Amino acid sequence: LRVVAAAGGLPGALSGAFLDLAGVSAAQLQAISQAPGSAIGSSRQHLDDEALASLVEVMRREEIRYLLYTGGNGSMETALRLHHYATRRGYELRVGGIPKTIDNDLAVTDHAPGYPSAARFAAHALRDIGEDNRSLPPPVCVVEVLGRNTGWLAAATALARSHADSAPHLIYFPERPVALEEIAADVEAVYRRLGVVTVAVCEGQLNERGRPFGAEVDRAGSGVHRLASNLGHTLARELATILGLRVRAEKPGLLGRSCQTLASEIDRAESWRCGEAAARAILGTGEPGFMAALRRTCHEPYASEVFLTPLDSVARRERPLPSEFIAPDGKDVTDELLAYLAPLTGGLPPHPRLEPPKRGSPDAQ
Amino acid sequence: LRVVAAAGGLPGALSGAFLDLAGVSAAQLQAISQAPGSAIGSSRQHLDDEALASLVEVMRREEIRYLLYTGGNGSMETALRLHHYATRRGYELRVGGIPKTIDNDLAVTDHAPGYPSAARFAAHALRDIGEDNRSLPPPVCVVEVLGRNTGWLAAATALARSHADSAPHLIYFPERPVALEEIAADVEAVYRRLGVVTVAVCEGQLNERGRPFGAEVDRAGSGVHRLASNLGHTLARELATILGLRVRAEKPGLLGRSCQTLASEIDRAESWRCGEAAARAILGTGEPGFMAALRRTCHEPYASEVFLTPLDSVARRERPLPSEFIAPDGKDVTDELLAYLAPLTGGLPPHPRLEPPKRGSPDAQ
Repeated sequence: LRVVAAAGGLPGALSGAFLDLAGVSAAQLQAISQAPGSAIGSSRQHLDDEALASLVEVMRREEIRYLLYTGGNGSMETALRLHHYATRRGYELRVGGIPKTIDNDLAVTDHAPGYPSAARFAAHALRDIGEDNRSLPPPVCVVEVLGRNTGWLAAATALARSHADSAPHLIYFPERPVALEEIAADVEAVYRRLGVVTVAVCEGQLNERGRPFGAEVDRAGSGVHRLASNLGHTLARELATILGLRVRAEKPGLLGRSCQTLASEIDRAESWRCGEAAARAILGTGEPGFMAALRRTCHEPYASEVFLTPLDSVARRERPLPSEFIAPDGKDVTDELLAYLAPLTGGLPPHPRLEPPKRGSPDAQ
Repeated sequence: LRVVAAAGGLPGALSGAFLDLAGVSAAQLQAISQAPGSAIGSSRQHLDDEALASLVEVMRREEIRYLLYTGGNGSMETALRLHHYATRRGYELRVGGIPKTIDNDLAVTDHAPGYPSAARFAAHALRDIGEDNRSLPPPVCVVEVLGRNTGWLAAATALARSHADSAPHLIYFPERPVALEEIAADVEAVYRRLGVVTVAVCEGQLNERGRPFGAEVDRAGSGVHRLASNLGHTLARELATILGLRVRAEKPGLLGRSCQTLASEIDRAESWRCGEAAARAILGTGEPGFMAALRRTCHEPYASEVFLTPLDSVARRERPLPSEFIAPDGKDVTDELLAYLAPLTGGLPPHPRLEPPKRGSPDAQ
């Protein structure tokens, strides 16, 4: 049995650049399982029909009969297309999917590997930035977390709270588009009550017209290059203008998916188990065209098991944050969300507080 | 003996809002010593002559005879002014300073408490973001770290490297102003060699005219509000225009000084010892008007001791990154910097790498 990986993802597979995984030691594999990113490499290349044909041609030439594809709902769609194409062409290729997306927008699975770690980071970030704001306040701080289309990671910031006045004070979700003026009114109300406001919002937050805040397009040299959106900064500037207050923007950015130190232990263990289950299944005799998925078998203490689901049950389906996880006013999470999430991220010790001053008091406003 | 803290720093002291510290338990104190920010609170308020007089008036009224002031060179200047003013007015007030600044620009002390933790964060951030960029590249990524006037934290990112091609590939310092066009040429050279470039730069980087990149002023409601500068984003946009490449900007921001999980253990221990030494000294019979400082007594294994230095040896003096810590070309650190810094931050395990593909290879350009 030969085991190879496509260097850099699809581009490597198309050009025939394969990494030999048989030579990887158990110790090296263990180290890789703890590291961020992908040791194999990854890409966002789209597989058009022509590339699909080339890819199956490479498989045939390399005598590759088993293919495991890692990623989110877009990747599972690619895996499904490969499965169908090879079947139609009569090339025996068993295709399986390994779930991995911090966005957690994969259907069927209880959660996607990658999400618990990114959620843990987002919660720690809001806890620590919130504490910083509380001790040296800008009146308002907008923290932009990851999450392009769904509010799963914005929701995770709720785990940061330990006291009645803890950050985040407001959480918005792309599932609940909101007008700038409404955000400004919300912020002002919290500011009047507490004097300091920390807002959690994800990079894909939509305004009332369903358009993302802060999307920015830049015309550069050889063509149009889309810059990473800068939603938090744009929102901060607009809130400062409306409210006449100093507003800071914070965007922990890619660290939100790559910070090794804040990865969730449960996530690490489940990621390994999903990969292992997919590898066993692809070498087995069951139906190909599956994705490994997680099922929660016990809430307390938390336990999960891996099962297989057909690729077409997950391909291209986007799972938004469900309504029962969003507070009725659309600006907070529910206890159900906390119960779902807390076991995945592990504990988040609260920051200590001193008692407020006994005599006199600085003007809170 | 009564022990109080000025709630929120200077504003609390001026308004007579004091926190009673005598009631804080040892366990609570221990928890506070592990938390980011300041449990007491802090401010950036400037103490003008009128406020100085009011403050000494409050001290007199509250019968405060011992004052410990925490912060960087600006705070030590305030402490020194208080010391002089009280002396001139014949009010017996013993003033001492406790050093604390992530910027590490305090004179006399080997390093400032706060810096080792922020340095450790900066190194981890570049290691993890660098790994993310390597596995899913934007061709160029500009990472903005903290550091308003000096390159101490930009320099710390060099600890992230473990392989010949590790991030950061270029490091700039405010001590070495540099033209945009020169940065672009540097980036292009690395890009041609490696195909992926990660740049570390601090928020205070200056261009060849000695002006900060990306300073931004926003006119809002009641007046002019300075937004947090957005140097990395500005630089990324300009590099994208010049080079015709996709350039991402990353700014971990305030997490760089507040991330509890990545704080340095040596930093925690030394911060405690500086505070303890200052408290003992202020109650002693030696000269007031001092700051506690750190002296490195052994390089390997690292050891330090606390000593006292006159406030006027540190007040308002800014210590830039010394020339022997900056590489001759101004775009990297020296081995001396690594030897100085590594014991303060502790170990930084490298990320593992797979061997490059044996057959074929994707076009690196």
